[in-house]
Amino acid sequence: MPASSAASAPSANPTVAATFATLDANEAVASVAYRLSELIAIYPITPSSAMAESCDEWSAGGRRNLWGEVPRVTQLQSEGGVAGAVHGGLIGGALTTSFTASQGLLLMIPNLYKIAGELLPFALHVSARAIAAQGLSIFGDHQDVMACRATGCVLLCSNNGQEAQDLALVAHAATLRARLPFIHFFDGFRTSHEVSKLELLDDDQLRAVIDEADLAAFRARGLSPDRPSLRGTAQNPDVYFQGRESVNRFYDALPDIVQATMDRLATACGRQYHLVEYSGHPEAERVVVAMGSAVDTLGETSRWLQEKHGEKLGVIAVRLAHPFPAAAFRATLPRTVRSIAVLDRTKEPGSLGEPLFLNVVAALAGSDRSPRVIGGRYGLGSKEFTPGMARAVFDTLAQSQPRHPFTVGILDDVTGLSLPYDADFDLEPADVRRCVFVGLGADGTVGANKNSIKIIGEQTDNFAQGYFVYDSKKSGSVTTSHLRFGPRPIRSPYLIRAADFVACSQFNFVGRQRVLEYARPGGTVLLNSPYAAEETWHRLPREWQRTLIERRLRLWVIDATQVAQASGMGRRTNTVLQTCFFALSGVLPQAEAIKQIKKAIDKTYGRKGEQIVKMNYAAVDAALAGMHEVTLPAAVDPAALATVPPRYDGAPQFVQEVTARLLANEGDLMPVSAMPLDGCWPTGTARYEKRNIALEVPVWDPAICIQCNKCAMVCPHAAIRAKFVAPEALAEAPAEFPHVPFRS
Amino acid sequence: MPASSAASAPSANPTVAATFATLDANEAVASVAYRLSELIAIYPITPSSAMAESCDEWSAGGRRNLWGEVPRVTQLQSEGGVAGAVHGGLIGGALTTSFTASQGLLLMIPNLYKIAGELLPFALHVSARAIAAQGLSIFGDHQDVMACRATGCVLLCSNNGQEAQDLALVAHAATLRARLPFIHFFDGFRTSHEVSKLELLDDDQLRAVIDEADLAAFRARGLSPDRPSLRGTAQNPDVYFQGRESVNRFYDALPDIVQATMDRLATACGRQYHLVEYSGHPEAERVVVAMGSAVDTLGETSRWLQEKHGEKLGVIAVRLAHPFPAAAFRATLPRTVRSIAVLDRTKEPGSLGEPLFLNVVAALAGSDRSPRVIGGRYGLGSKEFTPGMARAVFDTLAQSQPRHPFTVGILDDVTGLSLPYDADFDLEPADVRRCVFVGLGADGTVGANKNSIKIIGEQTDNFAQGYFVYDSKKSGSVTTSHLRFGPRPIRSPYLIRAADFVACSQFNFVGRQRVLEYARPGGTVLLNSPYAAEETWHRLPREWQRTLIERRLRLWVIDATQVAQASGMGRRTNTVLQTCFFALSGVLPQAEAIKQIKKAIDKTYGRKGEQIVKMNYAAVDAALAGMHEVTLPAAVDPAALATVPPRYDGAPQFVQEVTARLLANEGDLMPVSAMPLDGCWPTGTARYEKRNIALEVPVWDPAICIQCNKCAMVCPHAAIRAKFVAPEALAEAPAEFPHVPFRS
Repeated sequence: MPASSAASAPSANPTVAATFATLDANEAVASVAYRLSELIAIYPITPSSAMAESCDEWSAGGRRNLWGEVPRVTQLQSEGGVAGAVHGGLIGGALTTSFTASQGLLLMIPNLYKIAGELLPFALHVSARAIAAQGLSIFGDHQDVMACRATGCVLLCSNNGQEAQDLALVAHAATLRARLPFIHFFDGFRTSHEVSKLELLDDDQLRAVIDEADLAAFRARGLSPDRPSLRGTAQNPDVYFQGRESVNRFYDALPDIVQATMDRLATACGRQYHLVEYSGHPEAERVVVAMGSAVDTLGETSRWLQEKHGEKLGVIAVRLAHPFPAAAFRATLPRTVRSIAVLDRTKEPGSLGEPLFLNVVAALAGSDRSPRVIGGRYGLGSKEFTPGMARAVFDTLAQSQPRHPFTVGILDDVTGLSLPYDADFDLEPADVRRCVFVGLGADGTVGANKNSIKIIGEQTDNFAQGYFVYDSKKSGSVTTSHLRFGPRPIRSPYLIRAADFVACSQFNFVGRQRVLEYARPGGTVLLNSPYAAEETWHRLPREWQRTLIERRLRLWVIDATQVAQASGMGRRTNTVLQTCFFALSGVLPQAEAIKQIKKAIDKTYGRKGEQIVKMNYAAVDAALAGMHEVTLPAAVDPAALATVPPRYDGAPQFVQEVTARLLANEGDLMPVSAMPLDGCWPTGTARYEKRNIALEVPVWDPAICIQCNKCAMVCPHAAIRAKFVAPEALAEAPAEFPHVPFRS
Repeated sequence: MPASSAASAPSANPTVAATFATLDANEAVASVAYRLSELIAIYPITPSSAMAESCDEWSAGGRRNLWGEVPRVTQLQSEGGVAGAVHGGLIGGALTTSFTASQGLLLMIPNLYKIAGELLPFALHVSARAIAAQGLSIFGDHQDVMACRATGCVLLCSNNGQEAQDLALVAHAATLRARLPFIHFFDGFRTSHEVSKLELLDDDQLRAVIDEADLAAFRARGLSPDRPSLRGTAQNPDVYFQGRESVNRFYDALPDIVQATMDRLATACGRQYHLVEYSGHPEAERVVVAMGSAVDTLGETSRWLQEKHGEKLGVIAVRLAHPFPAAAFRATLPRTVRSIAVLDRTKEPGSLGEPLFLNVVAALAGSDRSPRVIGGRYGLGSKEFTPGMARAVFDTLAQSQPRHPFTVGILDDVTGLSLPYDADFDLEPADVRRCVFVGLGADGTVGANKNSIKIIGEQTDNFAQGYFVYDSKKSGSVTTSHLRFGPRPIRSPYLIRAADFVACSQFNFVGRQRVLEYARPGGTVLLNSPYAAEETWHRLPREWQRTLIERRLRLWVIDATQVAQASGMGRRTNTVLQTCFFALSGVLPQAEAIKQIKKAIDKTYGRKGEQIVKMNYAAVDAALAGMHEVTLPAAVDPAALATVPPRYDGAPQFVQEVTARLLANEGDLMPVSAMPLDGCWPTGTARYEKRNIALEVPVWDPAICIQCNKCAMVCPHAAIRAKFVAPEALAEAPAEFPHVPFRS
C-alpha cells in the first residue's frame, strides 16, 4: 500500500478537497471552538481537560482565531467561576466558550439558567461523563448533560469524532442565530479520546457557516458604557411569568435554525447532518433510538442483521436532544415500525424512564402513531456497548412482551432488568485490521500507539481509529490500546475482541493479564521478553503455550528493555515496540515506516532536546535486529508450569468475592448483587493487590546508607521502614535483620 | 361568637384531641424538622429563611429535640457548604436536616447525587421558588425542585400548611426506612408564608410515626473510628454501571414505604394522606392533575362547578412527585375520564412538556387507558392561580381540540398559548369573612394582621388564613394583607377579590393605590385620615366618592397617626388600626378583643421593654374613641377633584408603556409582548417612580447646619447635595437657592 505524502481524499461533495487528519474529538472540537472564540474560560475536568489545555497552549503560542485575534484563555477557581466569567463575557458581547463535564457542569447550572434566560449565544463543549453517586466515575455517559435539560440550554449530540468537530461548528454558528446557548456533547472517552481519521474543517469552511450578520447583531447587543442597560432585575409576581414565556418563539424557531446551519455546513464541506437521522430498512418493523457513540454500533449491527438475516430494522440517531424535534422525529420514523426501543446512556433513579425515552413517548402521544415503546439504559460510566448488546436490543423488540425498562451490558440479578446478550458476537469485516497493545501505565505504550495511528491515518489511504483504555489509577496500571485501520471510515466504537496483532510490553503480564485473549486465530503476537526466543517459550506458562498452539498464533519476541537501555532510553520501550509493530504489520513499506516513526519522534520529543530524539532514533534502528520469531513446537512443553492464580487465603469474604475479581479484570462479569449498595467499601484491601510490576526491587544497603531516611518516605508500599531502637533490643534479632549504628 | 380559651376541636380521628394553632408553613415545618434533627446546617434564602431562623433561635434558646438533645445549628458560607455539611453529618450517623430554595438548592445538586447514591436518609425542606433567568424572582414555583429530579432524591409535595407540617413528618420518618433522601416541598410564599389555623403535631405523634428501629439502623451504619469504611471510591467502567443499578429496589420499594408512613400518621393524628389523591365526581369525564397550592383552588372550583352546573369533574393531587407512583395514579383515575389536563408550576424552556405532564403521559403510555392528555403552565414566580383560571382549565378540557401546551393566568399575545379566563369569577361562600388591609412596607400593618389572624384562629372557633403581599422592594412599598376566617378549614390559596372589610393605613394612597377595588358591595372601609370625618369626605377624589356611594360602602376614618403619636408610638399606626378592625368586624366581643390585642402586644413587643408595651396599650385604648363613621351623602361632591393619574410626558416610550404600568399596579395585565425578551431593561427609569410616600419632607435649615454632610449621604433621592463653590459663582444665584459660608 503506497504512502501518500499529503493525505487527502474526495469528500462527499466532489467540489471540496478535504484535508484528513488523525486526532481525537477533544482536539478537533477545541480547534473549532478556539478559532471561533475571543474569551475562553476554563477549569480542567476529565475527560474535557484536553480541550481546555489545547486552547491554553494555542493562546500562549499566539495562535489566532478566525478574525485574527489571539483568544484570551483564563482559568478560574472552579467551574462555578467559569460560568460566571462566561456570563460576563457574553454580556459584554465577547464570543465566549468553555469546556467541562460531570460535577463541573453541575456547578454551572445556576448560571446556565441565567445565560439561557438572557438569550446569550454560547457553545459549551462537554465530553459527557457520569456523576459521582455511590462512587465516583471519571468515565463517559450522559448523566451530566441530562441534568441540565431544565436550564433552557440547547442540547446537541455528536456521535463520533467527525461529527463532534462538525457539530461544534454548527453549535457556534446556530447559537448566534438562535440566541440560545448550546451544550454540545459527545461521549466522554469513547468519543473524546478516540483518535480517528477525520476530515478537518478549515478556516474558509468556518467562515462559510458562521453568519457575520448574526455576529454583528450579537456584538451590537453587548453591554458597554456607551450602551448602558440594566440586567438582572428582580421581577415580581405581576410580570415574571410573562417574561418567562416571552422566549417561547426562540425555542420554536430553534430546530429549523439548527437544520439550516447543518445545511450550510453541508454546502461548505459536503457532510450533511439532520436533527434526527434515520438509517435502515425503508419498511423497518423494529427501530432503536439513541444518541452518542452507540448510534454507530447500532447502525453497524442493524446493517449486519439486515444483510445476514433479512431483518427489517432501523436506527434513529438523535442529534438535537433538546428541544426535542418531535415533528422531525415522527416524520423520519417509518410507518411500518411496530416497536421502538429508546436507549439512554444515563440513569435518573426512580424515574418512569430516562429523558430520551420520555421525549419519544411524549412525541408519539396524541399522534396517529402508536408503536410499542420501551426504554433501556446502557453504557453508564463507559460500560462497553458492543454489537452483541445492540443485537440483544433488536432481539428483545421482536418479543411479544419486551422487557421495560431494561438494561443491557450488565447482569442485573437483583431487579432482573438486564437483557441477555451474546458476548462473543463479532461482526467486524475481515478488511479492517485490528491490533491490541497491552502495556503498563506510563511505559509509553499509549503515546507510541497514538503516533502509530496518526502515521497510518495520515501517511496511508487507510481510515484509522485508536482507543486507549486505562483505569483511573493512571500511572502504573494496565493500559490497552485498540487500533483499527481499513479502507472505510471506522464506526466501531467498542473494544477489539479478535485482533490480528497483539503486543505485550511487559513480560511480567504473562499469565497474569489478558493478552492472548485478544488474538484472533492465526494472529500475530509480539512479546517484550528478557529472554531469547527459545528460552521465552519454555518460560511461558502452560496455558499460554496451549493457546498459542491451538490458535495457530505467530509469536515474536524482542528484549525491548535491553534495546531501550542500550540506546540510552532506560525503561522506555515504546519506540522499540512501535518499530516492531510496523515491521510485523506491513501496513507501510519498512523504510517508509521507519521514516515516519522518526518523523513522529521529532514531533513528539523535539521539544525535549536533540539528545532524546537521537536516543529514540537509535532504538528504532536497533529494534528490528532484536526481533525474533519463536518457532512453536507441536505440543506444550511438559515441563511448563501452570499459571498460578493469586490466592487470597485468609482474606475477608469481600476481598475474595469482590476485590479479587476486580484485580483479575473480571469486574465486567460481576453481577449487580456483588456491588456494595451505598458506596461503602471495607478498608484495608489495598494490601491484597499484589501487582509485582517492578522490574527491579530496591534493597537497603547498610554499607552505603547515609541515614537520610528518604527511602522510607518514598517507598510506595512502606516496605522500608526506618526505626530507632536501643542496641539491647537487637540482642535477639535474627541475622537477616539488617541494622546499623545510629549516626548522630 | 364566644372565645374559647384553649382552642381545640375534634379531629377526624375522634380518639385524638387536636391542638390548633395559627402559623405559617415555614414555622410548622421547622418545628417538626427541629424536633427530629441533631444537626441543622443552614444558609438563608427567601422564602425558606424563616425555617432556618426559627431553628437557629430555638437552638440558641436551648429547646430540645424529640430525644432530649439540643440540635446543633450551623450556618455555612453558602448552600454548597450546607450540602457538604449535611453529607458529612449523615455519613456520621447524625439526623441532619436543612432548608433552602431556588439557586440555593441548585448549589446542592452535586451533593444530592452523592447523598442519594450513598442511600443516606435526609429530609430537605424547600419553600419552592422560581429560578433567576431573564430576571430574578424571589417568588414561588417549582422550577428549583424540578431541577433536582435527576439526582435520585424523592420529591414529596405538600399543598397547604397543614399538609406541609404533616408531610414533613412523613419525610423524616420515611427517609429513615427507605434510605433515600427526601426533598419535601411546598409553594414558596403562598404556602410557606400563609398563616393558617392548623392542627399541630405533638411529640407523641412524632414518636408514633418515627420508627426507632429504622433510626437505630441508620446510626449503626454511621462512620466512626470503630466502624471504619471506605466511601467515595472511584469506580471504573467494569463495575460503575452495576453499582448504579444496585439501588433500583430502594426506589421500587419507596412508594409503599411512603404510603405506609402516611398510614401511620393517620393512626397517630387522624389525617389520612395518599401518594396521589383523587377528589371529585366518581364518574368524572375531565380531570386536572396538579401539585402544590393549586390543588386546593382546583378542588374548590371543581366542587363548585359540580354543584352549580352538574359538571363531571375531578382533581388528582400528586403528593409523591418522584418516583412518580404510576400504578397508584392509574388506579385512582376514574375509568370514565376522557381528558386530562396536567398543570405544572414550572417551565423548562424547549421541553415537550413539563415534568409532571411527561410523567402522566408515560404512566398512561402502554396501559389500557388512553384519555387525551394536555399540559399547561401556571403560577410561575407566584403568579396568582384563581378559581377563574381553574375553571378555564376545566373548560378547555371540554373542547374538541384543547390547546396544548397552554398557559393560564397571563395573556400570551406572542405564542398564543394562554387560555382566556374570567378574572371576575368568584365562588367564595358568604360565611367566609374576608378582610384586606392596604399598608406601607414597614408601617406595621403586616405584623398587626399576623397578630389579628392568630387571635381569631386561636381565640375563636373560626378557621383562619392570612396572606401578605409585598413586593421585593420590601420596606417602603405597598403591602396588602388578605385575611379570611370562617367555620371550615380555609382552602382558598389566592388573593381576596371581594372583601367585607378593607383598611387603608396611608391617606396618601387615596386615589393612587388599589383600595376600594377590594371591597364587596356593602362592605366596610377603614381609612387612616389626618382629617375629621366630614373633611375627609371632601378631600376624597371624585372616583372614590362615586365608588363609595355606588357600592354602598360604610366608611370609617381615624387619625391613627395622631393617636399613635399621642401614645408615644411615633408613626407606628398598626396597633391603632388593628383595634379599629376588631371593633368594626365584631369577630370577638369588644372587651375580649381588646384583651387579646393586649396579649398579642405582650408577646410581640415584650422583649422590647415595658415602655413599648405600655405605649401600645395606650394606643389601643385611644383608638376606639378616635374612630368615626363618615355619613355618605347621596351624591358626589361637585367640588371634589378627579384623581390625576401620574403623567410621564417626555419619558421614553418604554417608561410610558412598561414602567408606568408596573407603577400603576397593572403588571398582571401586561401581555407577554410587553416584556423585554432577554432581561435587558433601559436604565434611568427609577426617577419616574414618584411614590410620595413621605408624611414629612426634610428641608435643609442653613441656620443650624453644622456641615456634617450626612444629609447628602442619607437622602434616598439625592435631593440634598452638598457642594463647595467659590463665592463669586453665587453672584447670580436666585434668592431661593440657599447657601452658607464654608466652615473650615
